[in-house]
Order: sequence, then structure tokens, then C-alpha cells
Amino acid sequence: MTKTAGTKKTSARPEPNAARETRVVGKPVPKVDGLSLATGRAKFTADEIPPHCLVGMLLLSPHAHAKIKSIDTSEAEKLPGVRAILHHGNVPRIAHTTAGQGFPEPSPWDTFMFDNKVRYVGDRVAAVAAETRDIALQALKLIRVEYEPLPAVFDFEEALKPGAPIIHDEPDITSFLPFDPKRNLAAWAKADVGDIEKGLAEADVVVEGEFETHYYAHAPIEPHVTLTYLDPDGRLVIRTSTQVPFHCRRIVAQTLGIPVRQIRVIKPRLGGGFGGKQEILLEDVCAMLTLRTGRPVLMELNRAQEFTSSRTRHPMRMWAKMGVKKNGEVTAIDFRGILNTGAYGSHGLTVLTNVGSKCLGLLRCPNVRFDGKTVYTNLPVGGAYRGYGATQGMMALGQLIDEAARAIGMDPVEFCLRNHIRAGETHPIFRALGEGREGVDMTIASCGLAECIRLGAERFGWKQRRGKGASMPGPIKRGAGMVILMQGSSIPEIDMAAAIVKLNDDGSVNLYSGATDLGTGADTILAQIVAETLHIPVSDVILTVADTDNSPFDTGAYASSTTYLSGEAARRAAVDLLENMRQVAAEALDVSPEKLDVGEKCFYVHGNPRKTISYEALARRALYSRNQQQLVGHASAISHVSPPPFAAHFCEVEVDTETGVVRVVKYVAAVDCGVPINPKLAEGQTEGAVLNSIGAALMEEYLFNDDGRMLNPTFNYYKLFTPGETPLVETILVPTHEPTGPYGAKSVSEISTNGPLPAIANAIYDAVGVRLRKAPYTPERVLEALEAKRKAEHS
Amino acid sequence: MTKTAGTKKTSARPEPNAARETRVVGKPVPKVDGLSLATGRAKFTADEIPPHCLVGMLLLSPHAHAKIKSIDTSEAEKLPGVRAILHHGNVPRIAHTTAGQGFPEPSPWDTFMFDNKVRYVGDRVAAVAAETRDIALQALKLIRVEYEPLPAVFDFEEALKPGAPIIHDEPDITSFLPFDPKRNLAAWAKADVGDIEKGLAEADVVVEGEFETHYYAHAPIEPHVTLTYLDPDGRLVIRTSTQVPFHCRRIVAQTLGIPVRQIRVIKPRLGGGFGGKQEILLEDVCAMLTLRTGRPVLMELNRAQEFTSSRTRHPMRMWAKMGVKKNGEVTAIDFRGILNTGAYGSHGLTVLTNVGSKCLGLLRCPNVRFDGKTVYTNLPVGGAYRGYGATQGMMALGQLIDEAARAIGMDPVEFCLRNHIRAGETHPIFRALGEGREGVDMTIASCGLAECIRLGAERFGWKQRRGKGASMPGPIKRGAGMVILMQGSSIPEIDMAAAIVKLNDDGSVNLYSGATDLGTGADTILAQIVAETLHIPVSDVILTVADTDNSPFDTGAYASSTTYLSGEAARRAAVDLLENMRQVAAEALDVSPEKLDVGEKCFYVHGNPRKTISYEALARRALYSRNQQQLVGHASAISHVSPPPFAAHFCEVEVDTETGVVRVVKYVAAVDCGVPINPKLAEGQTEGAVLNSIGAALMEEYLFNDDGRMLNPTFNYYKLFTPGETPLVETILVPTHEPTGPYGAKSVSEISTNGPLPAIANAIYDAVGVRLRKAPYTPERVLEALEAKRKAEHS
Repeated sequence: MTKTAGTKKTSARPEPNAARETRVVGKPVPKVDGLSLATGRAKFTADEIPPHCLVGMLLLSPHAHAKIKSIDTSEAEKLPGVRAILHHGNVPRIAHTTAGQGFPEPSPWDTFMFDNKVRYVGDRVAAVAAETRDIALQALKLIRVEYEPLPAVFDFEEALKPGAPIIHDEPDITSFLPFDPKRNLAAWAKADVGDIEKGLAEADVVVEGEFETHYYAHAPIEPHVTLTYLDPDGRLVIRTSTQVPFHCRRIVAQTLGIPVRQIRVIKPRLGGGFGGKQEILLEDVCAMLTLRTGRPVLMELNRAQEFTSSRTRHPMRMWAKMGVKKNGEVTAIDFRGILNTGAYGSHGLTVLTNVGSKCLGLLRCPNVRFDGKTVYTNLPVGGAYRGYGATQGMMALGQLIDEAARAIGMDPVEFCLRNHIRAGETHPIFRALGEGREGVDMTIASCGLAECIRLGAERFGWKQRRGKGASMPGPIKRGAGMVILMQGSSIPEIDMAAAIVKLNDDGSVNLYSGATDLGTGADTILAQIVAETLHIPVSDVILTVADTDNSPFDTGAYASSTTYLSGEAARRAAVDLLENMRQVAAEALDVSPEKLDVGEKCFYVHGNPRKTISYEALARRALYSRNQQQLVGHASAISHVSPPPFAAHFCEVEVDTETGVVRVVKYVAAVDCGVPINPKLAEGQTEGAVLNSIGAALMEEYLFNDDGRMLNPTFNYYKLFTPGETPLVETILVPTHEPTGPYGAKSVSEISTNGPLPAIANAIYDAVGVRLRKAPYTPERVLEALEAKRKAEHS
Repeated sequence: MTKTAGTKKTSARPEPNAARETRVVGKPVPKVDGLSLATGRAKFTADEIPPHCLVGMLLLSPHAHAKIKSIDTSEAEKLPGVRAILHHGNVPRIAHTTAGQGFPEPSPWDTFMFDNKVRYVGDRVAAVAAETRDIALQALKLIRVEYEPLPAVFDFEEALKPGAPIIHDEPDITSFLPFDPKRNLAAWAKADVGDIEKGLAEADVVVEGEFETHYYAHAPIEPHVTLTYLDPDGRLVIRTSTQVPFHCRRIVAQTLGIPVRQIRVIKPRLGGGFGGKQEILLEDVCAMLTLRTGRPVLMELNRAQEFTSSRTRHPMRMWAKMGVKKNGEVTAIDFRGILNTGAYGSHGLTVLTNVGSKCLGLLRCPNVRFDGKTVYTNLPVGGAYRGYGATQGMMALGQLIDEAARAIGMDPVEFCLRNHIRAGETHPIFRALGEGREGVDMTIASCGLAECIRLGAERFGWKQRRGKGASMPGPIKRGAGMVILMQGSSIPEIDMAAAIVKLNDDGSVNLYSGATDLGTGADTILAQIVAETLHIPVSDVILTVADTDNSPFDTGAYASSTTYLSGEAARRAAVDLLENMRQVAAEALDVSPEKLDVGEKCFYVHGNPRKTISYEALARRALYSRNQQQLVGHASAISHVSPPPFAAHFCEVEVDTETGVVRVVKYVAAVDCGVPINPKLAEGQTEGAVLNSIGAALMEEYLFNDDGRMLNPTFNYYKLFTPGETPLVETILVPTHEPTGPYGAKSVSEISTNGPLPAIANAIYDAVGVRLRKAPYTPERVLEALEAKRKAEHS
């Protein structure tokens, strides 16, 4: 059950700069791909397999750390039906990096198609293409790999110690980061704003703690899957479940050593990404198998491989300290952390900086210090994951806020209302940590956080639900927690989107966009924006999306940028088309263009609605009749800001003090995502994000044995919540109007991922008085904490 | 063996307005689809059949003229595997017309998906979709049709007589033509320029004759074939062998009563069109079968159906008269003709007007009269066919010129040189016959005809080869004939083309064009033009062509418009992109844009070639780095003129006076197509056109029985020349520079179709002194003419 505080119309506090009345934007129109998805007709990557397609499979490392002394493929090659075998000895050694190419997006600079070393259990060793799955499996078994096992390191802090096994000792990897391979240091980010010592000294109370988040998975319904083949002209087609088709094109071109023009990347329907499909995990190998064989090749990660060999949430160990005065003023935040990126760098730098900039800037505080390190370990590889560092950082900071408020006897709601950043303000930490590209202004233009806190608390029943734990009879205690959140919308001056729109005979339009709908509804959002701008129904927008041959460039679906940037590009392209259409309409109606108003699929003369021309008549005139032309609009969009959405989450839990089981019984997420282009989709994104992180907070966790092997890479032993096990998430959309966003929109998809870890921890504390600083909050950890508390009370 | 008088470089007479030195244009670069075609990898319509595709088949009329009293499909429906049956009783009756919709292209205004009457043997009666071909065939046999046969009419002149059976008596067909169904008159075109009677009176000699051309076929290697299916969103996809994808979309939308936005038309590789694939012959029925069944449906005409039930060359009976003075001056041309359009109007009006405007304007002559009628008969339907009326008209006029020259004792070469229209001139007949849309200026801007005549005569050895027939010993006589020709390049103010170009990371571009390559090489021409304009290799142009969803609008491949208009649109779009690129280059190099010169894939500062930026660097800057944007260019092109290409054809024949067999032994075609964008393709077009019409002149002919049934609808009995039976056609490209065409180009594909019929007839006359006024010039007709001549000489 989700409820909306209202779109713009019903807003409790209409923004002064609210947009004009909208027809399509702000309305819960059905997903444009809803019917095809619901009927099973939608085509995912593996739904269109060409004839004579080979099966590609990976041989993965059984060792956490080893040198590959030799690979003997002779027996495998003899197996009838084996068509190609790839390994480090027969492919180019070109890093998956973009360093030095003018594009700073953190594609892994230390990853090769195959290497002569394996760095974690699940690392790529070789690949086979064969006529059938069975032959491929058999061939994998026939490849003889001689390993020289090396000592491995798994712990954050151990990895940094002198004498630790060095995971990346290769001299030839291109680096643009200040990392030190001799210490397994993959990245380092520091910022020092104000005077932290002075701030701590000024505080009446200082709260502090060590916090730790864990390994968990994106777990998309559709694992990584790639189909590659040669088109009739010999160009390489990569049909793949990716969030970044254009980056895929570029990186594969570079890795395989073929020109960009020889590659076409098609993104079909996607069964979820959540950040996990932002890297090139299969495409390079699959493409190479196609080049070697001339045949189509399909590769899929199975579920176990999806756990071990794709990407995960970066675990983080954090030491955080906050100084507050008795009046609630925050005087200092000191934040140290080590991010575990596993065996490869992946997004290790930018996730790290995001920990600081998306969390530490949330509160007004003049003295802030951030010291973050990213380390290599011989474990699975962290990557982009919805929330992107803010999830980890808020797990600590969200609890610290609760602790600080409690320490001075203030309601956390009051504490948050007092301290949160406001519209018109900025925080020096933004610039200090990576949003600092020239020209970027990180002043907050829209902020509905106060409203989120108030409306959320009211809907949740904060006053009534909080602080009841101690007084409840029986073993089951209830408690309430809350947290405030902030994210961004795009990476300023880096992300880019473009759109082209053309007008058809009947007044419908084709929209060409490189935006990548992962299942989020982005295509619907784009169609709504174009329909709104052109005054046409959504059904009149025909989408060609995310095909590098037929879509304009787009950096892809990440950094909460799709609605904000790709949507803005679509809006501008539609405006461009509309103005071109207006010229034709003016000519047809024999008036000057500025005298024309826009009606539903028509122009009419201002004040004279009977003097009108329909889009259809206009299109036919343009295409068939007078001064013939194909009416087109196109535009690009970049951002100079990354306007944060804000949210306040409220959570009630039940803690069974006998079993340690925690159940979330109520969850309210109040979100300011600017104007929600589609409230239903915004609610869906919020619900999905919250449920994702409730699972992470309570259940989901990679378990490793002492050799770094994941013990539970199946949905039997790595449990996801199923319907019925989860609370109904109530979403309140608190509309603001973001002046830089299309129709006032900001992002919505990531922010709510960051709430459950701290909100649940705070609620547990409220219920039973124990603070869980290590996630997930499993029954074992809860019981342990209760036991420790009991002991402390009785000692 | 084809030879080129030279591209621009080697031109005997360089045009004063010759374009700049070109790198790619004017060069015989290989076809961009050559490799895929040669290796069999290219995908034609039927090369990608989706699973569960049904087979669609047509039931065709066995009667030349009949009412359908009833259709009983009950037995057929009971047959397992039959999925749908269509006939006039269960489909909408909406004409395939565009009348009244602002688009005058002559789509047939009298054709329905199915009608309650059949008008020729081969007319559509019903269609079946079934699981297999066998079931479909069986179902066709089970459909019981009760016909009421009606008297039929087959002859041109009989059809016009009072009391003739009326073929179109339906009251509800929309007409925008001055036709009179009561007389089977489908169209009528008249023009009267100067004073014809005065002109004839001034003449020293008047020559005249009745001429007749015949039914013959386009005979593309790939017959009409259409595949329709619903995409995952329920939109109708029509994959079809068509010359007019956008018209197909519009007409099917209208015929089926669904919106244009619900339809996507894809033109794959095509196995030839020659004008025959310019109408909707299968697409409407196939699409309706898909809508009825929800299933993919494939329909193909078999070879017999391709002969009888697609489109043919309109036969024409002509009465022409020419007055000349002894000095060679032409004082009058009087031209009457009746065009037989068969059972449906098809292109009957525009082919008719083209007879006049493309032939009668070729000679300087102040007094010209044209009186043309198009009649319905109960025979197969004439349609667009390469040459489009000019072929028929020149069969008569080309012979009349020869007769007139002979009558005054002048060499036809001299006669043509004296009388042909020149650059800077126009002819009132152009405007009088349909090129007369407002704003159209039909002044000839470029004319290399004199050069064509001189170079052609020289290469051919005109002086040596002519007039030898009488003096040759034995039964085999040789003779030489020539003819001059003119065609157009596009329909002014009607045809339209557009193009969009986008720049990729590596400096390559995607070109989006609706131009329709039928096998002609149009895609290569477009790629060359874009490559030339942008200073990139042809391989850097990635084409998305002729897909109504992904290409901008284009009226299609007809009227010799593709190079001229679609090429010009591509050129302009490339210029637009180049100028946008220049801005970025200027910013990067910190100079003003006008200081930049363009080099191979780079800009450099004028006079300082070391200060340079490659397209790749520029693209990466634009996409990834500074003021990010997708660089795009787009443009539309229409024509205000239809610049004629010109040609002079020279032909030597051997006539076996004992058997009547005529063999072409030498053929030289000298063609002014402006600057040939690709000389190899221009030569190929010329050779193909000449061979096509040599076949038509000597062998190809529909034979009908008395009931209007075609007797020879197979390649066994309708003989096409095969390699070894045809002479080598020598092509001379005589370059001029057409100022309105892209890089100086005019059209080339149609004009040479018009040469062989008159040139061969003239050569036969030269060899044996008989004039064949009825085509084809079969052994029977030759012998008959020789016998008549003998009789006349001995009487």
C-alpha cells in the first residue's frame, strides 16, 4: 500500500517555482513496456538466439590467490564440438580502463580479459565456446590449469599491513589514481573541512563507533547474459544485459583492438541491474569468442557465478565520531573508513568518495573530516550498487545521529530538522570530494527534506511508536527508528545524454535515446516527458532506445542520472521539434509563430481556437506538400549540478529477544524527488530500494570459508525476502520543483536504498537498547548484543 | 567490357563549374553491401523468418472479368491448420489511394484489398494463412467462389469504344483524375504548344507512323515477398521487398484502418525492383492476416504470379508525326497515344504524361502536340517500370527521328546534334505536362548530350558501321542505329528525402536515411557522399537505411531520385554535422572556426597543419569531456527542378534474313549523368538498363489466349537473355556538373532503358530496310516485314 502526499496539485507546500499544469507528467501512466512484460512477449537478451549459436562458458578460479603456471587446452580442443578456447595466453592484454582517454568514469583499470594470475575464487581463467552446453561443460573440465597458490588476504585491515600478500603486483596496469599497490591500497580519498579538533573540542557530547557493512549481492532476476554475433556486413553485434551500452561499445573496441565503428551494442529488455551491469563482465569474452569462431555465442552467468563472479556491494569498515552541543548543534564529524573492493578496483574510488560527499554534506556542520581508503582483498569484487557508497556511509552516520540525539536527550526528528542542509545552502565537502569539477555549483536548489521529516513522522506515528520497547511485556519488543538521506542526480560535467525526435505522418513521433531502462521505467519517463512537451499522448511516442547504432550517445544508467539527464535531453529535443513544427504551423495558418498556442496535438491561433492545424495535417504538409522536410528535434544535456533528492525513512521493528529475530513491521519512506514524472514508478523505485536494503539489513550476506570461497551462492542459502515476508512500504512523495530538472524532476531510484540499514538499527536500539554496528543484523548478532548488554548491566 | 570516358579528371571537356577535387566521389569504390551479397550473408525479406510463422497465399482470379456472386470458405476453414481466410466480404473496402491527402503520387485509386469483382486473370480474390504451404494450397482449393463471368475487353482501342464492357463501374472510388469510367478511360493528358498545324505546314517533309509497345515484365530475381508480425508491444512490423517503405506504412495504415504509429516497415536487402515494387501488392493482405491471427505471416508471389499479378510495362499504341525542313529543322511533332493500364489505374496518369514530357521536350521544336489517353482493359496491370513512359515514347520518337533524318538525307547523328535541347534552354512541354507544379523551373542547367553523341559515335565507329546492310553478301545483314535520350532526376516539389548523421567516439558516423537501395548501389552512393563531405573513409559510414522507425522520411526509390535527392539530403546533413564539428574543433584548438581547414578525419589551422585535432579526439572531447554533446547533423532535400540526364545510344545488329533472328552485336551507351558518384555503379546501371531493354526489344513478351490468360508465365517460355547471349555493352560516362545535384550528380538508372527499342529498330532498318513499328522485333515480325517489303518492291 503506497500513498502519495500528492503530485504537484495536492502538494502540502506548493513550490513557488512550480511548473505549469501538466497533462502527462506527474501522472501514474502505465509503463510503456508493461503489456509486453506482463504477457511475456518482451524480448530479453536471450530471447532471440540466432541459428547455429554457440554456448560460451567461463572457467573460474578455485583459488583465492594463485599464479597460473600453465594452461593446457589440448584435451579440451580435441573434444568434438569445441570451437574456441580463450585464456591469458591467447588474448590481448589490454586493461578495461579508460584512463587517459578523457573519460574519468571508473571503469576498472586493473582488469584484463584474462590474466596470468587469479585473485579471488571465481576469477576468470578461461572460456570455451562449444556447440552445446554439455560439450562446453565437459571442455571446461578438460582444461588443465597448473596453479601456484599464493597466500591470500581477506580482511580490510590485514590487507593494508606491511607484509600482506600483494594482490596487484603487475607493473603494467595503467593507473590514474593515487594508489599504492605495495600496500593493496586501491584508492585513497581525504577531505578536511573547517577544524575538526576545534569542532570536537567545542562539543558537549561526542559519540563515536566502529561500524561495518558486509558483502551482499545485487541479485537481479536476470543474471549477466550476453549474445554476440557478426551481422551480414561482418560488424560485431553485442546484445547484452547492460546498463552502459555506449561504454560497452568503447571498452570492447579497446579490449579487442577493433574500431568502435565495427561494433553495435543492443540493450534489449533487462531483468534488473542495480549497478551490477555497469561493467564489462561477459561482453569482451563473448565477443572474442565470436571473432575467433565467426559464430554467434551466448554466455550467461549461472546463479552461483552471478554471486561470486559478477560484482557485489563493497563492504566497508568505518570509524565515525560526531560532536554535538546540548542545543543540538553539530560541531564536528570525523569519518574514517576502509572500503573493501575485493580483487579488482572496479568502482573503488568513486564509491569511496561518495561515502563522504553523499553523507557528510547532509548535516550543517562546519568541521568535517573524511579519510577513506579502498583496499584490495582476495574476495569477490565490489562494484556499483544502488546507493553507491551512501548506503555504507549512512549505515554509520544514520546511527551516529540517533546516538547523538539520544545523548543530548533530543528527539532525532527534532535533531534532523534542526541540522539538515537546506535549499540555498551548500557544503564544502561536496567540492572537496569529487563533485569538484570546474564549473560545478553544488548549491542545493530544492530541498523538501523538512517536509519529508514532518510528513513521514506524522504518517508513521513517530511519537506514538517510539520508545515503547522497554515497557512492552513478553519477549517481543517493538521499537522505532528514523534516518534522513540524500543522494545525487547524475555526475556533473561527466554524465551526458542526448535525444533525437522525428515527426511522423500521423503526428506521432519517434524518440531516439541512449538511455537504458533496466526495468526501472525509464522508457516510460522519457515517453511522458516527450508527450508532455509536445502535447501528445504517450502512445504517440515510439521509442528506439539504447542501440548504439540507432540511438544518440548516452553515458548510461547510473548515478541516478536517467530521468534528470536523459529526460532533460528528451525534453529539449522535443522543444526543438515543437519549435520547428510551430514554424510550419505558422506558415500553414499564415500567422507569425509567436501567435500560436499549443493544444492537444494541434496548434491554434492565440485567442482564436478555431483557427487551428492538427499535428497530423502539419506533418502531412511538411512531408508531402509544401517546403517539404522531415521535422526533427535534437538536443544533448549535461549537468552542472547534481541536485540531491532527499528522504526521511521511518521504521518500526519487532525484536524477538528469545530468538534474536528482527521483523520490520512498518516502514514509511517520505521522498523529495522533485516533481515525480510518474508517481507510480517513483513509488515502485522507493519500495524496491527499501525492500532491497531490508533484506541486506536482516538476512543477505556472503559467507566465506577460510579459503575465501563463498559458501552460500544460491537462493537456498542466500535468502531474499519473498512477498509475505516483507512489510508494506508506504511511500510519500513530497514534491518540490527542481529548477534544473526536466519538469522539476530529480532522481529517485537510489536514495531509498540507504535508509533501512540505519533505520532498522536505530529501531532495534529503540526496542531493546542494543546498537548493532555490524550488518546484517542477524539473530545471532542480535542475541549476542543482547547477551553483552545483559552482562554489562549485571556486572 | 565497359569503358569510361573518364570521371571528372579525365573528362574530354571539363565543365566550367566542375566541383572541387574529390577523394571518394567519382571513384569506383566497392559496394558497401558487396561482401555480404557475394558471401550470401546479406539478409533479404525471407531470410529472417520468426518462429511459428504462417504461410499466406493468394487465390487469384481465373476470369478476365467477372462478378463474384459468393464465396464459401466453410470447407477451407474446417481444414486443420488454416488460421485465417480473407476476401472482400470480411475486410474493409478502402481504396489504396492517397487522393485528397495532399500527396499526389499515383497510388492506385481503384484498388482495394479485395473487391466483389475480378477484372483480369490473376486478380486477387481471397487469401489464406495456414500453418504450412501445403495446407494453404489445399485451403485455396477448398474455397468455393461462384463467379458471374462478364464480357471482357483486351484491346486498347476496343476498350474506348461505346458499348465496350465497363471495367470500373464502382461508384465509390475516389478519383482526382479526369477519367471517365463509362469509357474505360483511366486518364487523359493533353498539351498543345505552339501551332501544330502551322508547324506541319512549314515542313518540307512529314514522316509519320503507328507504333506499339508490348506487355513485358520487370522480372526481378526476387519476386514480391512480405513478412508481417507483431512486435512485443503489439505494433505491426512489415518486412518487405519494397521501393517505398514510407508510402507502404501510410497506405497500409489507411487500408487496414490502424494508425501510422502502429506500423513499422523494414526494407531489407532487395533482389531488384525496377519500379515493380512501388505498390502495395502483398503488404496489406499479409498485414491483415497477421492482425487476424496475431501470428507472423510470410507471403511470396511465385514466379507465375509475379508475371500475372504484380505489375508490368504499360503497353502503348502511338501515332506520331514529325515535320522537318530540308536543313534539318524540326517544325512540328504531333504525338497521340493510348496507354493500356490493364485492369487497374496504377501509375497510368503519370506514365502517360512522362511519355510526353520526357520525349517531346528532347528536341528544339516550337510546335508540339500531345494527346494521350490511358485505358482500362481486362489484362494485367501496368505499373511503374524503369523508364516510366519515356521507354514507350522513345520507341516511337526515336524511330521517327531516324526516318526524318533519312527523309532529308541527313545523318541522324548530325540531325540529333542540330536539334537537341541545350543547357540554358527549356521546353514548354515540360510545364504543360505535369512538371508544372508551382515554383518548378525546368530550364536545363547541364547538358552533355552533344558530347555523348560525338564520343558515342566515335567509340562506336558510326561512320564505318552504318549503311553497310545492302552491300553485304549472304543472308546475314548488319546495320547500325542510334538514338538520343533524356530522363529526369526526381519529381520536383513532390519527392523528398531527409537524412540524419551522428558522430561516434572514433570519428565514424551513423547515417540514417529512408533511401531505398534496390540493389542499385544507392547505399554505397550515400556513404560516398557522406564520406566525401566529412573527409572520412567510406568504411566510417554506418548505414541505417529504410526502416520507418529508424530512418527519416523519404518518398522512396522512384523517378530516378535517389542519388539526386536522398544523396543531396545526406550531403546537407553531413555539412550540418561538419559545421557542428568545426565549432568543437575551434574551441579545442582555440581559434575561430573559419580559420580551420578540413583534412583526412581532422581539422587543422589554415596554414598550420601541425595544429590539428583528429575527429576521434574531437568526438571524445564532445562526448566525454567538455560542453558534452552528441554531435548531429540533419537535413531534408526537395527539388525545384528535375535535371535531365542525357544519353546517346549506338547499336549494331545482325539480321538473319532467312530466319528473321536479330542479334545485337555492338552497343555503345554514352551517358551524361552529371558527375557519376560511383562510375562503376553508373556503368552497372547503364549496362543493366540496356540489357533489360534489348530483351524487351527482341524476346520478352506476354502472350495471352483469347480469354486474357497469360500463356507463358515462366522463364521457360518467357525468355530472358542469359550471359553469353548478350553483347558487351560499352558505357561512356560523359561527365557534366549539375549545379543542383550533390557533387554535380544527376540520375543514371532509368535513362538507358529507353535506348534499345528505337536503336535496334533503327539498326534493323539500316540493315535490311524494314521498319519495325511493333515491339518486340521477333523473328516472325522481322520475316513478315521483309516479306511485305519484298512484295512491295515486286508489285
